[in-house]
Amino acid sequence: MSIAIYPGTFDPITFGHIDVASRASKAFDELIVVVMNNSLKMNSLFDTEERMELLEKTFKNSDNISIDSHSGLLVDYLKKKDIHVVVRGLRAVSDFEYEMQMAAANKALYPTLDTFFLMTDTQYSFISSTLVKEIAFHGENIDRWVPEHVRKSMAEKIEQIRKNV
Amino acid sequence: MSIAIYPGTFDPITFGHIDVASRASKAFDELIVVVMNNSLKMNSLFDTEERMELLEKTFKNSDNISIDSHSGLLVDYLKKKDIHVVVRGLRAVSDFEYEMQMAAANKALYPTLDTFFLMTDTQYSFISSTLVKEIAFHGENIDRWVPEHVRKSMAEKIEQIRKNV
Amino acid sequence: MSIAIYPGTFDPITFGHIDVASRASKAFDELIVVVMNNSLKMNSLFDTEERMELLEKTFKNSDNISIDSHSGLLVDYLKKKDIHVVVRGLRAVSDFEYEMQMAAANKALYPTLDTFFLMTDTQYSFISSTLVKEIAFHGENIDRWVPEHVRKSMAEKIEQIRKNV
Amino acid sequence: MSIAIYPGTFDPITFGHIDVASRASKAFDELIVVVMNNSLKMNSLFDTEERMELLEKTFKNSDNISIDSHSGLLVDYLKKKDIHVVVRGLRAVSDFEYEMQMAAANKALYPTLDTFFLMTDTQYSFISSTLVKEIAFHGENIDRWVPEHVRKSMAEKIEQIRKNV
Amino acid sequence: MSIAIYPGTFDPITFGHIDVASRASKAFDELIVVVMNNSLKMNSLFDTEERMELLEKTFKNSDNISIDSHSGLLVDYLKKKDIHVVVRGLRAVSDFEYEMQMAAANKALYPTLDTFFLMTDTQYSFISSTLVKEIAFHGENIDRWVPEHVRKSMAEKIEQIRKNV
Amino acid sequence: MSIAIYPGTFDPITFGHIDVASRASKAFDELIVVVMNNSLKMNSLFDTEERMELLEKTFKNSDNISIDSHSGLLVDYLKKKDIHVVVRGLRAVSDFEYEMQMAAANKALYPTLDTFFLMTDTQYSFISSTLVKEIAFHGENIDRWVPEHVRKSMAEKIEQIRKNV
Repeated sequence: MSIAIYPGTFDPITFGHIDVASRASKAFDELIVVVMNNSLKMNSLFDTEERMELLEKTFKNSDNISIDSHSGLLVDYLKKKDIHVVVRGLRAVSDFEYEMQMAAANKALYPTLDTFFLMTDTQYSFISSTLVKEIAFHGENIDRWVPEHVRKSMAEKIEQIRKNV
Repeated sequence: MSIAIYPGTFDPITFGHIDVASRASKAFDELIVVVMNNSLKMNSLFDTEERMELLEKTFKNSDNISIDSHSGLLVDYLKKKDIHVVVRGLRAVSDFEYEMQMAAANKALYPTLDTFFLMTDTQYSFISSTLVKEIAFHGENIDRWVPEHVRKSMAEKIEQIRKNV
Repeated sequence: MSIAIYPGTFDPITFGHIDVASRASKAFDELIVVVMNNSLKMNSLFDTEERMELLEKTFKNSDNISIDSHSGLLVDYLKKKDIHVVVRGLRAVSDFEYEMQMAAANKALYPTLDTFFLMTDTQYSFISSTLVKEIAFHGENIDRWVPEHVRKSMAEKIEQIRKNV
Repeated sequence: MSIAIYPGTFDPITFGHIDVASRASKAFDELIVVVMNNSLKMNSLFDTEERMELLEKTFKNSDNISIDSHSGLLVDYLKKKDIHVVVRGLRAVSDFEYEMQMAAANKALYPTLDTFFLMTDTQYSFISSTLVKEIAFHGENIDRWVPEHVRKSMAEKIEQIRKNV
Repeated sequence: MSIAIYPGTFDPITFGHIDVASRASKAFDELIVVVMNNSLKMNSLFDTEERMELLEKTFKNSDNISIDSHSGLLVDYLKKKDIHVVVRGLRAVSDFEYEMQMAAANKALYPTLDTFFLMTDTQYSFISSTLVKEIAFHGENIDRWVPEHVRKSMAEKIEQIRKNV
Repeated sequence: MSIAIYPGTFDPITFGHIDVASRASKAFDELIVVVMNNSLKMNSLFDTEERMELLEKTFKNSDNISIDSHSGLLVDYLKKKDIHVVVRGLRAVSDFEYEMQMAAANKALYPTLDTFFLMTDTQYSFISSTLVKEIAFHGENIDRWVPEHVRKSMAEKIEQIRKNV
């Protein structure tokens, strides 16, 4: 049985991520979407638990997609779970070089690991969670980039932040 | 059961191709390596049958790798065989853009198709069949880039070409 | 009054070209679409006159778009017509470098000239005339990439070529 | 009448920016250079008002260039002013990908908008405001990269900063 | 006599840096490896003196390699020492653009200067000091990327940091 | 004593090549400019002997630059002459990837070899021999891209070709 993981920050999940995950879930028997809890990335909108909840809702009808989270190096998660396939989306040349570097480093640390890349659908090729957050903060409509439940959670979160400032 | 195809010209197969194929064969249940018979690419060293023979020898001990060939568009092969996963190796940024274009065109012609990319191992990232042929023609050693049986067939072929000129 | 030209091979025109031309025609008072008759590019499907006819039909309802053709260097055309603005579409990084080289060379030959680039809409970012021709030759549907009258002319042309072989 | 805007941080304006603005001002009837007041970009040398003053002085003899500033998303400014053309300079491949992402996002938020790119003149292709500031801080001559009045304001500003530390 | 310098942050030195330095030391009569003391780069693991010690140990058997450090612009160091050749390693396209910008800026400030680039050996093309530090912090083995004495110093440093937190 | 070679097609030599050669000749004790006689590249304007003559004239006042030619693989020339340093110019990202591939292949065939790259001066970054020939064929002025004696030889050659057609 082929199991793959799809790691990312997912702060929050966008239609670009959903496109990659659903395509990967057709090629492999099981797909685990893993929220990487990278303490160095500040300015996150949602904490790990909130991101997982948004992912759970997003993929609640997908039988072979499950959600998990991990703190630390990706290879530690893979070794612990005995998984050897990582899936990543590629949008642009700049992604490509960073991802190639990470794939090579991960393979050096865990030689049986392989990273498979999916080109992001051209209609999502310019979306990033960062851009979506910036647009949402300025009150513009983000319907075309995130599902309804994500849009709602973002709106609530942004209102909270505004009150606390 | 997940079936993937790995299409290419393979004139001839190199250690770079072998690396991609063996990694893909671990992630999917079955892998078909398909020699694309592109009549536009002239100056080929081996004809389609010879390339298939070299591939057969290369993967004779791999249980879930089989060899095939196809003339025409890749999507026609995939539709006929009802296969939805294509595997390709990526070496460099220039590869990336060409492959992104082809993946998007193929997906437009056959929407259930997805192309998965593997980064070529850095030690093979500068090899191409074209470069190996050029080096072999000038009599330099190509042992580090192709298996022994490929090297031998290339040497015989090059000698034949020299006699006929 | 601002006049711009949009030069290209247009063998044949695609929805990607149409997208660039109609956007440019809104920003400038007048746009001339110029078929560059580059004798070095062999294997063209349509001759210059046929390409111009396809362009005429495509833009027959656009008041400020006219069609022309030119043999030789682009700057000679611009000098003769006293035009100083060139429009080009950009799809990818590889386009970018080639276009930067050409824009710099043209500016050196004709210093008052400036080249303005439009990013191709992401849904057309992988289309090229060459790819469309290859797909049409193999009998696949090209409706999403070219207008109906172009598709028809291509079908007739391809049938002619098949008969003559 | 064609109106275009040229948005940027301009902290401070360099000969590279001046080159783009004067070329754009020839192709369009009117050009508005807009200082984007991005609160996230810290470490700015000049505040928005100072940057606008430097721009005013720079373009005081250009009849069809005016200066403005804006806080928030670029599309909000464009909608408010009913402007549909944005001009940006492109220096390198890394610029290209970022700009393509921004142009696509802006077009999604405001479909009648189009972004036109000008290649920066090769002699200015390595200049950035950040680099000019770093060189000025170390006391090297920056005459070839900024006009005299900008150089003077930078020198005064840097002296002030040194005194306050 | 040809003297070259190889400037960098070296926090810490990796086998990638060692590969560049030893290759450069064969092409030039003398090579000075210079630790650039860039106060803006925070989060450094080792201070300038510690980095120099690690470099001294690394190259103690190389007759024509010496170690130095510098605060401020690279060109000031070169002018003071009357050196005209800089050596830099190139790993990827993103490196290339940044390095091209810096080489052009340095040449503008010091016209007799020339920057020579060496492609990093493909087996080191994905290593960076930043990545090695991140992997070491998570307790993974870094033997293949840094010499033994660097690995030891990193382990001690990381333990110190952990105690102080 | 450090000896370097600068190989190329040089059909014909441009100011871009001259810039690279003269900078390299300052960093190394001796520089050999080698015309690579690549029989596969058709459509050459000058034959190997003519290209060498143009190079001889160009560098007649440079004490440490000599001219040579070679047919076959570059590494064969280097082994025969016991030279270990190759110099190449880099203009753009597309150059970079091709050159990285060639440098890695050459190093695999001849491990003591190292390739040093010089960024082409930005004012020459868009020149290529191919582009200069195309512009000359159309009768435009090429004074800014090639020395006077090259321009003259090109004019004579082009007249000859026109008569023979």
